[in-house]
Amino acid sequence: MARLAGVSRATVSYVLNNTSAVRISEPTRRRVHEAAQELGYVPHAAARSLRAGHSRIVLMPAPAIPVGPLYSRFLGELQAALGRLDYTVVQYGSVGLRGDEAARAWAELRPVAVLVPGGDIGPRGVAVLQRAGARAVVTLGPERVDGAHALLTDHSAVGHSAGAHLYARGRRRIGVVVPEEPGLEVFSEPRLAGVRRALHGTDATATVLPLAYTEQAAAELAAGWRGLSLDAVFAYNDEYAMLLMRALQDEGVRVPEDVAVVGADDLMLGRLLRPRLSTVRIELPSGRDLAELVDRAVRDPGAEPEVREVLGASLVHRASS
Amino acid sequence: MARLAGVSRATVSYVLNNTSAVRISEPTRRRVHEAAQELGYVPHAAARSLRAGHSRIVLMPAPAIPVGPLYSRFLGELQAALGRLDYTVVQYGSVGLRGDEAARAWAELRPVAVLVPGGDIGPRGVAVLQRAGARAVVTLGPERVDGAHALLTDHSAVGHSAGAHLYARGRRRIGVVVPEEPGLEVFSEPRLAGVRRALHGTDATATVLPLAYTEQAAAELAAGWRGLSLDAVFAYNDEYAMLLMRALQDEGVRVPEDVAVVGADDLMLGRLLRPRLSTVRIELPSGRDLAELVDRAVRDPGAEPEVREVLGASLVHRASS
Repeated sequence: MARLAGVSRATVSYVLNNTSAVRISEPTRRRVHEAAQELGYVPHAAARSLRAGHSRIVLMPAPAIPVGPLYSRFLGELQAALGRLDYTVVQYGSVGLRGDEAARAWAELRPVAVLVPGGDIGPRGVAVLQRAGARAVVTLGPERVDGAHALLTDHSAVGHSAGAHLYARGRRRIGVVVPEEPGLEVFSEPRLAGVRRALHGTDATATVLPLAYTEQAAAELAAGWRGLSLDAVFAYNDEYAMLLMRALQDEGVRVPEDVAVVGADDLMLGRLLRPRLSTVRIELPSGRDLAELVDRAVRDPGAEPEVREVLGASLVHRASS
Repeated sequence: MARLAGVSRATVSYVLNNTSAVRISEPTRRRVHEAAQELGYVPHAAARSLRAGHSRIVLMPAPAIPVGPLYSRFLGELQAALGRLDYTVVQYGSVGLRGDEAARAWAELRPVAVLVPGGDIGPRGVAVLQRAGARAVVTLGPERVDGAHALLTDHSAVGHSAGAHLYARGRRRIGVVVPEEPGLEVFSEPRLAGVRRALHGTDATATVLPLAYTEQAAAELAAGWRGLSLDAVFAYNDEYAMLLMRALQDEGVRVPEDVAVVGADDLMLGRLLRPRLSTVRIELPSGRDLAELVDRAVRDPGAEPEVREVLGASLVHRASS
């Protein structure tokens, strides 16, 4: 490259490393950059971050469970917003690792910030990341972790919306569908707790209904439905709600006359059913807000951790309840 | 760390870098590793890859368009399989970058292999990655790219299955729903071409029906339906099929008597509609097969690029057609 640009190797190195200690003329800089372009030179992120002592990498461990369209959109927005602030967003699938072990694997990439969804990190993991140079660790989940910024997603608000609505509609024996698929407890348990909280101190009851996401499981639950004497069901999310509602209708159980049904997530498809499905709409913070929080934390790593409630839940009343 | 382990700093460095040139006793190695553990030492992936000349990073640019559950599952499987082969899978959202520019950004991470979904790379991009040390570049998309291994996903097979089925059921005026949402052309165009191929040389016709994924757009299309004189529709995927089928039913158009409807993807929710939705089931290769291809290519970077057709399409006949 030095030969192509007609300069010394030291000059090439100064220009490509953007060294400010040495004065190099604009035409020379341009010749070096043109030669680099022609030769297909690509800077080495690793070497650059070793020199700088830290990277511009924001690491987002890929969530271990399948994510819905709402969360996908949120992640896409966040990546775009961080990209505009000149961070490089890297998603890292730490398959099979948990807790401190996962934190060590993440730390190897020397990220300047780490965004951990799902609360799968403890105070020791946060410390490992900070010792490895992470200026900001932000968790997105139900509980805060010592040393980390916290975006709290309180899913009990989702269940509370549904429970309060069904109670207000005069329902008193409320079933709560809890998925049997593993990994969803982090959402399903607080949603159930929210229904119980909404019914606390009233004459209404909450009955747990475990359900696998298959037509057969739904048909079996529906076949024994009349024995349960329930007049309403809150079904974890719209997909479980649609599955159960269809099975109930096939059994001749009338919705909403015999049983009111409420889902969550406000999927478009829920509006296509008859009766149209009532649901809880969930709101996450904007990707831009969150990107700004990350940037603030990186610039001021000594500041007190921020804690914010970020999940909004509101009931959308349609014909099924 | 040397003090805690009671050894020299050089010994610590030899042990942690796993240097084979120097003989170090097992107990000494263990003492160093215990001290490293106690002090929360995390190796630096960048430094390690600089020493080794290349990394174990397999880079998967995050797809720019939202992905369905089928593709999510495929990616999850692939990550797990590569993890078992001791690769580190990194997903990198290159928001806003395209073509060679994107390839240069990916090259900065010095991946040992790159898996590019969607065909968003050309021969120059492949060369940039190879010069930066990538031993294998694998594309997953409709066309092969010079210098790269290719997993070909021919979506025309999806449309061909649907078209051939509808023709065999006696339908002759077939509408093909093409989403108006940008970014889906890479799938929708070959699906449409597949329907046309299935009808080529017959007395049947294919009519393009642009449709946005909203209830209002579907209602408008349904309101003018009788003027189109169509007796069948293949609807890009199950979601568009469900949306349109509901709108047609609300207009009093009978499915399948007046119009046969076929979707694609075999979503569970399509089975919950009445009539149950006919669909094209799409099969992708197993993550394990693909991980083995990547590993083989990394071990033998000089081998001829492999080209494989990986998309399977088969019609699932239900009540809507």
